[in-house]
Amino acid sequence: MSKEVNSESVSLCPLNTAAAPEQELLCIFGTGDLGRSLGQRLLQCGYRVVYGSRRPHSCGPLPPGTQAVSHGAATQSANLIFVCIHRQNYDFLQTLAPQLNGKVLVDVSNNLKKNLYPEANAEYLQRLIPGAHVVKGFNTLSAWALQNGPSDSNRQVYLCGNMAEAKQAVTETATKLGFTVVDRGSLSAARELEDFPLQLFPEWRLPLRLAVGLTAAFFFYLIIRDIVYAYVVQGKDVSFRIMVSLANKVFPIVSLIMLSLCYLPGVIAAFLQLYRGTKYKRFPDWLDRWMLCRKQLGLLALAFASLHAMYTLIIPIRYYVRHRISEITISQIRENITYKFDTTMAWRTDSYYSVGILGFGLYILLGISSLPSVSNVLSWREFSFIQSKLGYLTLFFCTFHTYLYGWSMFLKPSYYKWYTPPAYMLSLVVPSVVLVLKLLLLLPCVDRTLTRIRQGWEKTDPENDSKKSLLT
Amino acid sequence: MSKEVNSESVSLCPLNTAAAPEQELLCIFGTGDLGRSLGQRLLQCGYRVVYGSRRPHSCGPLPPGTQAVSHGAATQSANLIFVCIHRQNYDFLQTLAPQLNGKVLVDVSNNLKKNLYPEANAEYLQRLIPGAHVVKGFNTLSAWALQNGPSDSNRQVYLCGNMAEAKQAVTETATKLGFTVVDRGSLSAARELEDFPLQLFPEWRLPLRLAVGLTAAFFFYLIIRDIVYAYVVQGKDVSFRIMVSLANKVFPIVSLIMLSLCYLPGVIAAFLQLYRGTKYKRFPDWLDRWMLCRKQLGLLALAFASLHAMYTLIIPIRYYVRHRISEITISQIRENITYKFDTTMAWRTDSYYSVGILGFGLYILLGISSLPSVSNVLSWREFSFIQSKLGYLTLFFCTFHTYLYGWSMFLKPSYYKWYTPPAYMLSLVVPSVVLVLKLLLLLPCVDRTLTRIRQGWEKTDPENDSKKSLLT
Amino acid sequence: MSKEVNSESVSLCPLNTAAAPEQELLCIFGTGDLGRSLGQRLLQCGYRVVYGSRRPHSCGPLPPGTQAVSHGAATQSANLIFVCIHRQNYDFLQTLAPQLNGKVLVDVSNNLKKNLYPEANAEYLQRLIPGAHVVKGFNTLSAWALQNGPSDSNRQVYLCGNMAEAKQAVTETATKLGFTVVDRGSLSAARELEDFPLQLFPEWRLPLRLAVGLTAAFFFYLIIRDIVYAYVVQGKDVSFRIMVSLANKVFPIVSLIMLSLCYLPGVIAAFLQLYRGTKYKRFPDWLDRWMLCRKQLGLLALAFASLHAMYTLIIPIRYYVRHRISEITISQIRENITYKFDTTMAWRTDSYYSVGILGFGLYILLGISSLPSVSNVLSWREFSFIQSKLGYLTLFFCTFHTYLYGWSMFLKPSYYKWYTPPAYMLSLVVPSVVLVLKLLLLLPCVDRTLTRIRQGWEKTDPENDSKKSLLT
Repeated sequence: MSKEVNSESVSLCPLNTAAAPEQELLCIFGTGDLGRSLGQRLLQCGYRVVYGSRRPHSCGPLPPGTQAVSHGAATQSANLIFVCIHRQNYDFLQTLAPQLNGKVLVDVSNNLKKNLYPEANAEYLQRLIPGAHVVKGFNTLSAWALQNGPSDSNRQVYLCGNMAEAKQAVTETATKLGFTVVDRGSLSAARELEDFPLQLFPEWRLPLRLAVGLTAAFFFYLIIRDIVYAYVVQGKDVSFRIMVSLANKVFPIVSLIMLSLCYLPGVIAAFLQLYRGTKYKRFPDWLDRWMLCRKQLGLLALAFASLHAMYTLIIPIRYYVRHRISEITISQIRENITYKFDTTMAWRTDSYYSVGILGFGLYILLGISSLPSVSNVLSWREFSFIQSKLGYLTLFFCTFHTYLYGWSMFLKPSYYKWYTPPAYMLSLVVPSVVLVLKLLLLLPCVDRTLTRIRQGWEKTDPENDSKKSLLT
Repeated sequence: MSKEVNSESVSLCPLNTAAAPEQELLCIFGTGDLGRSLGQRLLQCGYRVVYGSRRPHSCGPLPPGTQAVSHGAATQSANLIFVCIHRQNYDFLQTLAPQLNGKVLVDVSNNLKKNLYPEANAEYLQRLIPGAHVVKGFNTLSAWALQNGPSDSNRQVYLCGNMAEAKQAVTETATKLGFTVVDRGSLSAARELEDFPLQLFPEWRLPLRLAVGLTAAFFFYLIIRDIVYAYVVQGKDVSFRIMVSLANKVFPIVSLIMLSLCYLPGVIAAFLQLYRGTKYKRFPDWLDRWMLCRKQLGLLALAFASLHAMYTLIIPIRYYVRHRISEITISQIRENITYKFDTTMAWRTDSYYSVGILGFGLYILLGISSLPSVSNVLSWREFSFIQSKLGYLTLFFCTFHTYLYGWSMFLKPSYYKWYTPPAYMLSLVVPSVVLVLKLLLLLPCVDRTLTRIRQGWEKTDPENDSKKSLLT
Repeated sequence: MSKEVNSESVSLCPLNTAAAPEQELLCIFGTGDLGRSLGQRLLQCGYRVVYGSRRPHSCGPLPPGTQAVSHGAATQSANLIFVCIHRQNYDFLQTLAPQLNGKVLVDVSNNLKKNLYPEANAEYLQRLIPGAHVVKGFNTLSAWALQNGPSDSNRQVYLCGNMAEAKQAVTETATKLGFTVVDRGSLSAARELEDFPLQLFPEWRLPLRLAVGLTAAFFFYLIIRDIVYAYVVQGKDVSFRIMVSLANKVFPIVSLIMLSLCYLPGVIAAFLQLYRGTKYKRFPDWLDRWMLCRKQLGLLALAFASLHAMYTLIIPIRYYVRHRISEITISQIRENITYKFDTTMAWRTDSYYSVGILGFGLYILLGISSLPSVSNVLSWREFSFIQSKLGYLTLFFCTFHTYLYGWSMFLKPSYYKWYTPPAYMLSLVVPSVVLVLKLLLLLPCVDRTLTRIRQGWEKTDPENDSKKSLLT
């Protein structure tokens, strides 16, 4: 790839050239922060670097061993050019079009916002200099990684471009810098790559908002029912219950609702397909969006369930609980009462805990199988077995756990303070609906039709059919 | 790659061709569900698609913008052809052999069962049309992923084929569809790829069966010893203990046995190598199979250990336990007894818990290092350090934890109800054997011989040796 | 790739050649353990293998179906040669240089120690035979994996070499053996590949030593303050507290200190950049090293925090705790005292637990996002959001948790046994400092300057500036 180099650039590092004649010379357009960082790293990895600058003599400090020359001179000396300038300054490159013919231009640029321009920076660059081979890449790395090499979320360099040889050349350089290259196809993927560094958990936004909303709503509901009610009606200050008792009511409720919301869209989609009699019609947009964030819903549900588990396990070391238990024991002695052991109660509470633990175990299994490296080694049959079969089992266990918690409270009016139902009852609505609907879908006749639809079969609408035959 | 296209297919999308002349035309054989799903996705990603069909005029609804023509006509217009038809219909393709010469055929087919045919579908296709370049691929994706692009377990497209250029062409298309390509080598790997979507945790089957079997056996044993015995001999109904107390006896037992079974085959193999004096003789089949499922054994053991941890931690919030503790306190007061604090007891129980927690912590470390993405970044020296050294330490901690639990129970006859030993004693047999055998292997003289054998040294059998020298 | 093969090697497997004429013949130099293992695997995967040996007739048992011939004869028959001999024997290969011209040599060798030789084995080999295409590879696999194919930490084959075609040929073979190939660039990366199998958690050493040191120091401190003090001053033997109570004091202390040490270098670096007014000066070496092990510090801190959580959760099932609680209840009755419920106490302890749990939850989130497969799918903006923003939040929660634990103990002289402060107070020093410094950095004026510096701006030193203008 190294070519005859003009006298100006050869003079840059005569020592190096003598010692290791195969050292490749790369060119960087732009002497800003990005250009300097990248240049430093390239030098460290054994390349020679020349900068192209509009003001080669006043462009500030450059990495030692490099030199800034005019764009034209820099272009002549290298085949691979990193374009580290802002998009708004691209137009002057048009004047260099003849010299850039056949060169590989790596567009490293990013924008400050999404959709700022009608076309991706790299596509714009390609349009300006049709004779060059533009490769989009390196833009997903942080400036730190560009300067210091790969670290945690900066191991992969995403590339795209229309010419395989140009991508190959950039791949070799990226590999030498220590990165792993991921080829994202032709230059039409450039927009995607340029949006990548700007994103901050886009697919988590909806589920997170939902979680925050649900948490706030249930906290408010419980503060009124538990704290305010006790204060107003019984004149007791139990506000300290907010920190643990209330939190430990809100978290499982939100977790159960989120888990069921994770399975509801699948059920709705199935009924929609049954109703339409085909799988080839698009789902409404809201359903599509909902289905795309099921994984995030599930993982948030798992996070809330884990908090619930932790809050439950610290119950016996709480001051309030210890005080209360000791109080009960003392009153038993002072008033000489003996509470008889209630086997039903033992069965109920032990089942309640046991089902909860098993549900939580399955929950964690679902979470582990969502890890990218684990789901990658699963066949989709295995993945859907875990996420669907075991997922519904998890939902069933967790719902059952909540029913066991409620037990006979449903029927006792004393639990309906100020005519409002206990919060956990509200949390049971959606999961119960999802489980019933799923049961309906498992009925042999329904299941058979659905399977056929999903294999491509379509319900022939007699009216539509006759029309069709008329047309053809 | 785009070629001159015959008039029939050019007329398909005159608008597109004008706007973006480089849009590639791909061909799909077969208008079934698979073909239609794939076609839809290809259209979305900017390809033009033509279908090849035996009945082009009555093949049902196709994605808008595509058209079905005869196989021959479709073949002429494209270089890359997706074969989305069932294997039993492949033979008619033989008649197209001359037209398919030099084309890339992507075999997307799957079978309903393993070993249905003597050769892989793709190899069969290659045999039918020797002049074409058959590439196996896309078959590991679900129909959903083929239609909607990558999702969790559908990010990777596995390819295999004999011709690098053909694979490269398919790679580019797959990349454009958003998938990551994994090259699995030559067409001889096709069988493996075709079996992949059919598998449902094959390597988990044996360990799972073992876990279920052990769990059932110990549950039965404990029900008889704990529940039935109490009912028959003492006339007490303690059946509620099934849900938590019994479960929390079964889980640690199964976990410990499974963990030791995970290290037993390694020890057996070492002794076998010592006995044989060589590492070049194959192990018996059962040992090979056993060694291959050690990871699964270990992970299941970890799952059981986690359940044990959860079940242990909820002990103090159980109704039964609270009742029992309060009962004891009350009886202490009523009968005016004071239980003196027993320092030995405090030492023993605290050590018991502490060793258990440390063992569990190591257990989880072993589990984390088994995650594919973690074990991939470890060198094998690091991996074997964790899995072997830390693994034996884990086994030692867990076994010691169980011995501390037993303590003096071994000697008290009252624990041998109906002459059966407590279940935890049974669980100690295998781990104790494994640990003793491992200790033997660590003896300097044994260890030295074993290391030499594993480095390729072979015990020279004098008899054998003399025979050899006669022969050569 | 298959070539005309000389008569000697053709005769090796006449049967195979007839059946499948395309079976490639590979050559292995060296009949030691490595060569035999590799040969066995190559045979299994459908290659033919010929060994090159200095003593072809007395080189010990070889895999059945292979044969050893002289190096020269072996060279002629194959294009791809695996060099499975020790580096110290490389020099004799020089005599084969003419025959090895144009062949692909795969250097599989490893050294026993790092930096044993001035240049990498593969580079030495390339220097000996300049006409051959040396590819370094397969050396990161264990002998077991070479013989039996991929397993956990042996899925990836790292390759490097100067010639793309040679690497491609080796890639194909590696893929056929079932491995995934990772290209590490040119032969200059060989040293790195040769060091890889020798490493044993190099980047964990410093953090591990620190963790062990801190643990030992605090254990010692606590034994004196808690155990020895109680024995000497109060005459009580509370040595049993070592197993759980003391451990549960040491673990959170070490965890908090390690977590804060994980954020301290970043804060120091920021102040250094502010002071220097540039980001282009190198940090001192100790700071660089410290920053590189932040991830390991954080993960160890998480491990200690998890142990703390487990030790806390088993508190209520401890014999000592149960005994103590029952003792208190009994004394309350016997002496007819009633402890009144203290709402402030309830608020404090519940907040203490709640903040601790939330902090631990965030801790685990940080841990999960450190998994390679998770951090790979995050953009660096997302990753730094989690690791920096959420990281400081975690540190704040954990520090606050510790302050809540301390509460009013700071002021009570009785807690300063032998004039030493309680251990948890010592643990608060570093985190408090880090949090205060971070707060300073968040002040708008400081933050603005720092941001500018990090975007490449440099403080212009007036003196320096004038000098510069004189020079240019």
